[in-house]
Amino acid sequence: MNRAMIRNILGSVLEIEAVLLLIPVLTALWYREQVGWFYLGTALLCFLTGYLFRFRKAKDNVFYLKEGCVITGLSWLLMSAFGCLPLFASREIPRFEDALFETVSGFTTTGASIVPAVEKLSHAALMWRSLTHWIGGMGVLVFLLAIMPSSGSSHMNIMRAESPGPSVGKLVPKVRATAKILYIIYFGMTVLEIVFLLFGGMTFFESVNTSLATAGTGGFGIKNDSLLSYSPYIQWVVAVFMILFGINFNVFYLLLFGQIRKALKCEELRAYLGIIIAAVVIVFGSIVHSIGNTADALRHSVFTVGSLISSTGFATLDFNTWPAAARTVLITCMFVGACAGSTGGGIKVSRLVIALKTVFKELNSYLHPKSVRKIRFENKPVEHEVVRAVNVYFITFFVLFAFSILIVSLEGKDLVTNFTAVIATFNNIGPGLELVGPTSNYSHFGIVSKIVLMFDMLAGRLELFPMLLLFHPGIIKDFFRKSTVKN
Amino acid sequence: MNRAMIRNILGSVLEIEAVLLLIPVLTALWYREQVGWFYLGTALLCFLTGYLFRFRKAKDNVFYLKEGCVITGLSWLLMSAFGCLPLFASREIPRFEDALFETVSGFTTTGASIVPAVEKLSHAALMWRSLTHWIGGMGVLVFLLAIMPSSGSSHMNIMRAESPGPSVGKLVPKVRATAKILYIIYFGMTVLEIVFLLFGGMTFFESVNTSLATAGTGGFGIKNDSLLSYSPYIQWVVAVFMILFGINFNVFYLLLFGQIRKALKCEELRAYLGIIIAAVVIVFGSIVHSIGNTADALRHSVFTVGSLISSTGFATLDFNTWPAAARTVLITCMFVGACAGSTGGGIKVSRLVIALKTVFKELNSYLHPKSVRKIRFENKPVEHEVVRAVNVYFITFFVLFAFSILIVSLEGKDLVTNFTAVIATFNNIGPGLELVGPTSNYSHFGIVSKIVLMFDMLAGRLELFPMLLLFHPGIIKDFFRKSTVKN
Repeated sequence: MNRAMIRNILGSVLEIEAVLLLIPVLTALWYREQVGWFYLGTALLCFLTGYLFRFRKAKDNVFYLKEGCVITGLSWLLMSAFGCLPLFASREIPRFEDALFETVSGFTTTGASIVPAVEKLSHAALMWRSLTHWIGGMGVLVFLLAIMPSSGSSHMNIMRAESPGPSVGKLVPKVRATAKILYIIYFGMTVLEIVFLLFGGMTFFESVNTSLATAGTGGFGIKNDSLLSYSPYIQWVVAVFMILFGINFNVFYLLLFGQIRKALKCEELRAYLGIIIAAVVIVFGSIVHSIGNTADALRHSVFTVGSLISSTGFATLDFNTWPAAARTVLITCMFVGACAGSTGGGIKVSRLVIALKTVFKELNSYLHPKSVRKIRFENKPVEHEVVRAVNVYFITFFVLFAFSILIVSLEGKDLVTNFTAVIATFNNIGPGLELVGPTSNYSHFGIVSKIVLMFDMLAGRLELFPMLLLFHPGIIKDFFRKSTVKN
Repeated sequence: MNRAMIRNILGSVLEIEAVLLLIPVLTALWYREQVGWFYLGTALLCFLTGYLFRFRKAKDNVFYLKEGCVITGLSWLLMSAFGCLPLFASREIPRFEDALFETVSGFTTTGASIVPAVEKLSHAALMWRSLTHWIGGMGVLVFLLAIMPSSGSSHMNIMRAESPGPSVGKLVPKVRATAKILYIIYFGMTVLEIVFLLFGGMTFFESVNTSLATAGTGGFGIKNDSLLSYSPYIQWVVAVFMILFGINFNVFYLLLFGQIRKALKCEELRAYLGIIIAAVVIVFGSIVHSIGNTADALRHSVFTVGSLISSTGFATLDFNTWPAAARTVLITCMFVGACAGSTGGGIKVSRLVIALKTVFKELNSYLHPKSVRKIRFENKPVEHEVVRAVNVYFITFFVLFAFSILIVSLEGKDLVTNFTAVIATFNNIGPGLELVGPTSNYSHFGIVSKIVLMFDMLAGRLELFPMLLLFHPGIIKDFFRKSTVKN
């Protein structure tokens, strides 16, 4: 394995993190908070470590998919390990495992918090939490790709490991240009949401935080009641942007270049919006009576469905108290997840559409046993390799899911808590039901459960395999082998 | 589609059912119960309908897999529709949908009951309920194959549609001989259990009923408290036989012919026993403290794990009140299910093993991208077609599962009830947790939920596709098309 190259890239990742840590430093400076020093210290530590990692340059920068996966897995672990230091060192989160949990939850855009009283945190800490969402949403390695000199297939192998979805959608032939466009759209939309929120009377600090957390489909709130206390206008803005950030960025790219018709024809987009509408109808129907007001019920329905399907996790009401039908629909949304190529988590709409099509194909095969027609998706035949990858993803998903629930259940909490805690972390949503409902948090879990849930967050964000590979004996052996033999 | 042939076979199925209905008639005669007349009447009706169905013979008896599936789906529907008549007509179950539910639950070996007080039922009804389990366990079509003159591929296509498991295991080259051997083993083991139970002091009636329900991995009890009031010896006998009937019959066939070593090398058997041991350890660990007695705790653990993994559903204790860890392990067992080629339901151990191996293969493919090694199972390479079928099965399973829960949840019952009601019917187990726990029953569900759960029982027993195909527009059109055009 090309260890030198891995080291170099990890170095770059840490240097980027060092630069990003200056944002909470500036926040602390503005609000005259002492905690700023911890962020500054961590930034320096990050930069130094990154510099050391990059000191000895790799002789060649060719590497394969396995290196891409290992880099991705290690990057996310390293970013989280350094990112939690200021929270822990400042004693704003007194236990190390909690600080790590919070940071992993941030970077993976989960938004599952262990902080009981968010409003007591410093501005710097709040800003850093929101920022981890934003960085994690599009992926720090994708950012790196956008600024790194291109080197062909190596880039593609990183992109493939970090990007969500069953197949990597390059917007333009060059990976570097694709990464740039993605970040431009991402940045633009984030700014747009800030403007809309400012217009609704939010302070600058609030709107920046809320927008960063929406853009990354993260969901860390800056208030204990998430978005409950804000005006209907603000709630609608956030609801719309949550849904937007769950859309495949390919669609925005097409819109940007005026190809509106082509954008609206996107099959995944249609399925995504269709599921949202269906879910809203059922949720609305089952809560409208108890809420009493049609407009309010509609807003809460759209907001909650949008929040969970996009894997953001903001809340305007405690949906844990809703009727069973609504709660079941919400759990279903949690599984479905956003579109591939968005910042959202979950199984992804395109995977589900492809999976459903294989079922229909199977049924048709009884009628026409000799047919060899391929499944079509987005007007293209789906390659056998993609179908296989989707299948393996599903199986791996449910195996990890079952094991996680088994381990978490050893704590003796109720079944719905365990089930939704795992789904909410694995699909990077944040809140679940019962003890991990929107008015609650994850601090009551023991350390073993927290480790499992952290693993789930990382595995979920990186689409399972990069994290699993870090525990693969063959990969570990390959990593520690003398690097003279390559591949 | 070869409609005449389908009609003929359905006729045979009804005639067999007519003969089987004579057993409750004899039971009624012995116990001098008036309800016997209803069974006799139904037997006559069955026979007459069957006779009419077979009156005009098919011109050719060649058919394909689609006909095999349609025959299977329709047979099971028809058997249930006729089988519920005596229960309904005698007013022992006053509502038609409940009588149908009970019968579907019987034939599919689910054992989910809507009868609040089992002990009030007549002996004839109890015998008929147990008998439906026994018939459904091995499959009435497999029985038909054993007695019908062989006609090559047509037989195979029925066998494939009715037998559980990812691929059809023919014990011997001829389908008919395979079917015969299966029924001989099945019958022999049932008798063996009766003997063991009689030895433990059960009455003849009790032991026959219990043995029939164990053999089919059904689980209808003849007492309200299932097996709670019986002696530890009886409970151990039933526990062991439940686990035995969940084993691939291939293993018994090998044992029968003295190939003990080959039998013990069966990979699925080892995985099945391994899972049982692991599950027992966790369940035992989490209940031993509250039960207080090691021997009792062990017996209840083995019994409950064996009961749920083999999809039988008998109970010796109300496991709904056990700690979360135990309940989670039990739910996991419910998903796992028995071995392929047994009378048990669920996903099946062999499917899970193959699925797990595809995950490991996927991980290895990152290390050796060019490797084309096939997965091996039972010392043979697994064909691509089987892997594909396993994948499609999983996806279809979870899609149907999610839809069923969504519909059932509209009733507003709690999430654990809905979740376990669907899993317990879909995997043909019987009892779930909370409102469908072992001390409860399914009578409280509305008619829509009951229809969904009946569909799930049938779909689960027939491994999804035969039931789904009955709703496939292409198949329906094909069925009603003039039969001059074939295939």
